[in-house]
Amino acid sequence: MYEERIKRAALRDKVISAEESATFFKDGMVVGASGFTRGGDTKVVLKALAKRAQSDPLKIQLFTGASLGHGNDADLSNANALTKRLPFQVDTDLRNHINHGDLLFIDQHLGETNEALINGDLPKIDIAVIEATQILEDGSIVPTTSIGNNVVFLDLADKVIIEINTAIPLEIRGLHDIFRVGKAPNKQIIPITSSSTRIGTDTISVDPNKIIGIVFHEITDMTGDIVPPDEITGAIADNILDFLAHEVKKGRLTDSLLPLQCGIGKVANAVMAGFSKSDFKNLTMYSEVLQDSTFELIDAGMMDFASSTSMTVSQNCYNKFINNLDTYRDKVVFRPQNISNAAEVIRRLGVIGINTALEVDMYGNVNSTHVGGTKMMNGIGGSGDFARNAYMSIFVTSSTAKGNNISSVVPMVSHHDHTEHDVDVLVTEKGLADLRGLAPRERVPVIINNIVHEDYRDEFMDYFNRAKAKGGQTPHLLDEVYKWHNRFNETGSMKA
Amino acid sequence: MYEERIKRAALRDKVISAEESATFFKDGMVVGASGFTRGGDTKVVLKALAKRAQSDPLKIQLFTGASLGHGNDADLSNANALTKRLPFQVDTDLRNHINHGDLLFIDQHLGETNEALINGDLPKIDIAVIEATQILEDGSIVPTTSIGNNVVFLDLADKVIIEINTAIPLEIRGLHDIFRVGKAPNKQIIPITSSSTRIGTDTISVDPNKIIGIVFHEITDMTGDIVPPDEITGAIADNILDFLAHEVKKGRLTDSLLPLQCGIGKVANAVMAGFSKSDFKNLTMYSEVLQDSTFELIDAGMMDFASSTSMTVSQNCYNKFINNLDTYRDKVVFRPQNISNAAEVIRRLGVIGINTALEVDMYGNVNSTHVGGTKMMNGIGGSGDFARNAYMSIFVTSSTAKGNNISSVVPMVSHHDHTEHDVDVLVTEKGLADLRGLAPRERVPVIINNIVHEDYRDEFMDYFNRAKAKGGQTPHLLDEVYKWHNRFNETGSMKA
Repeated sequence: MYEERIKRAALRDKVISAEESATFFKDGMVVGASGFTRGGDTKVVLKALAKRAQSDPLKIQLFTGASLGHGNDADLSNANALTKRLPFQVDTDLRNHINHGDLLFIDQHLGETNEALINGDLPKIDIAVIEATQILEDGSIVPTTSIGNNVVFLDLADKVIIEINTAIPLEIRGLHDIFRVGKAPNKQIIPITSSSTRIGTDTISVDPNKIIGIVFHEITDMTGDIVPPDEITGAIADNILDFLAHEVKKGRLTDSLLPLQCGIGKVANAVMAGFSKSDFKNLTMYSEVLQDSTFELIDAGMMDFASSTSMTVSQNCYNKFINNLDTYRDKVVFRPQNISNAAEVIRRLGVIGINTALEVDMYGNVNSTHVGGTKMMNGIGGSGDFARNAYMSIFVTSSTAKGNNISSVVPMVSHHDHTEHDVDVLVTEKGLADLRGLAPRERVPVIINNIVHEDYRDEFMDYFNRAKAKGGQTPHLLDEVYKWHNRFNETGSMKA
Repeated sequence: MYEERIKRAALRDKVISAEESATFFKDGMVVGASGFTRGGDTKVVLKALAKRAQSDPLKIQLFTGASLGHGNDADLSNANALTKRLPFQVDTDLRNHINHGDLLFIDQHLGETNEALINGDLPKIDIAVIEATQILEDGSIVPTTSIGNNVVFLDLADKVIIEINTAIPLEIRGLHDIFRVGKAPNKQIIPITSSSTRIGTDTISVDPNKIIGIVFHEITDMTGDIVPPDEITGAIADNILDFLAHEVKKGRLTDSLLPLQCGIGKVANAVMAGFSKSDFKNLTMYSEVLQDSTFELIDAGMMDFASSTSMTVSQNCYNKFINNLDTYRDKVVFRPQNISNAAEVIRRLGVIGINTALEVDMYGNVNSTHVGGTKMMNGIGGSGDFARNAYMSIFVTSSTAKGNNISSVVPMVSHHDHTEHDVDVLVTEKGLADLRGLAPRERVPVIINNIVHEDYRDEFMDYFNRAKAKGGQTPHLLDEVYKWHNRFNETGSMKA
């Protein structure tokens, strides 16, 4: 086993247990770990570290690609072992610790962590913990089901621990494309001109002298249940698909559209699933995470290629992928997240970006992250990388939440992640607001009439009319702009 | 004269007067006109159109590169001849009309208008009115002191009117670099790897069959007075220069820094002027507008090269440039604004962006545009193109305005142009807040202690402490987040 998975013989004596690996960490260290959503996260080293921290207190800063599976974030934060975490998370326990102020969280554009590290805006990485499926003769590693920030972590870390995941077949080699952009003023052009362009190597080079431990395990990625579209998410998906078909009719898009990017979650999956019933063909994706719907579209012959940095799928889909790697070899590529989310490439390819909003406002600003303007939900993720640079930036949300007591469309969002400049289309189950080419005052009636729930329309229009009477490019009454939010805090409902 | 300025003989009979050119415009037309700040704007055709509109009412949509000189915006808006204007303006009369709701204004990232037009997000251009210094044999034109959106206007317009400015010597040919990125899915890589990289042609090709009129004039660009640094702007400049020197000491930058971008105005000019007293050398700019300070740094041998899309300078500087074009031929280049402001290039080169804020908040969000969250000042301009993609994004403002009755640093900005994710450094005359690598809760004391005016610090910290007690990633009290703004509206001062 070791011989096959560690081709570089000199490294074979670095194999240790997860418990031993945990002893390498010291209080105050900065750790860069693999993992982006549920793909390719570390399975045993951080777990062992969290266990050690329960009896032998220490605190680290933990940087990853995005969120982690396997309860890593819960274990570490509950063990009081984190001082700072970035750039994204979805864990309930960690979220509570963040909002309680127990630890600090930096909510970062996922495409920019790489550069922040290289530029020295963030502290140096002490230890990188990276999942791989194989170490080659030259010390380079074959990645697993995500790349995330692994390349920069490996490049900048003083020391490296490799988790070798024997659940991943060696045949996964070739599904990755590794490219280093470098550091200003000598950064490279990223010469990707289509989703399928390959520009780099299929393994990640690593300085073998930095490898202090290799831990074996055979644990697959966490998988999730696919939530079938319901009335709301189905209606949102239909609204988007009808709109895209309309754009094809108008001649602005072909029936292959442009490369799609889709956030994760039930709405996103409903949208992507909707494509399977559509007349579009030869679709492509230039996205950050692949879900079941991508593989279904590929299997159905409707999608030609999908580029991403990770995957987060159901158990069935995971098994299908892992057991049929050759089938997907020329259909899927995993790239570093500063490439999957590169402004340069997203803008060049003309990506159609579809992301989820927590709330949106009457001028088209979007809150993706902070409930009531204060409490972190997950993080901005890659939504900003895509929304700013997309050919078309679409944000989706249900028109209300909590039994209609919250309107997801409000006079002014309580936290701004994406400004009106970066938002082209807003969609709820009620309808679609196409904001392209509209000045702020033109956007308001389009939004109120098309996507706001009927329970809120009249008060909304009344607010706008009273604000407009006072003038301005974006009329607002600052003394009542968060009236609905404050009413909810007082009464449990935004309704009058 | 005609022979020299119009090399394509067949076009010489298209020469008409400005008054005649005004008759080509019809009610409802969309007009794309040259002009970016004070550089290379149309001088006579729009003037004649505004005059015509006084007696023969008509309304157009006017798209330009940025703001215009020569009172074009005042004349047209006062003649009630505009229905829509984009993407930027600085005119007092036009501003009043916008805020009064007399016409619609789209405030757009200056790097994105080109793409919005090509993608069909904006209506088709009926007539382009473009300043040039010469029409060549093949119908291509030699631009003057800006490029702006001229290329896309010429490409997309049904008809073209050329203003030939004989005040500009023919020797200006060669100072421009014209490149077309194209349309997705076939957009080109923009292969610029340093400020001075040339990637295109020195003239703009035009279909000669579209040219319906050529109007001669000999009117120079408007020039402005240079405001010498005062106590406030001088202190802001010193804070930035000290900080950059510190970054060099830390080894994060060399003494050539990285390409500089600087907004326009007195603060920006004070900062750039400050470089002349510094130890930095071999400086470069990758910016959108060149001011006097750029030419002074070039003349002093401190700056090697400056790339932009326009210039806005004093009369002395203008004369120096126009009379010494050969001196600047290998020091300056003018590019289309979708190239000068390209996300791809700004990120690749690692630009240091310095832009002005109207107000900033305790988490690092920036309002560049809307007074009191409602009234448009000028527009976002290129600040978003640069802030999002810069190596380092710096925003500057004086700590207070209106005799200390307004704090420019507030709990939450009343309009969001740039979110905390895109803001690295905030500077007032009080000091500098380096926000890199800081979580929101870490940013607040750094901001309050370093850049807030002392009259506001105690109430500010009290607000933060009370908000923090309620928890959250970005603690806020939504029912009093705009208390200072509302107090100002009621009492004329933000002070308690």
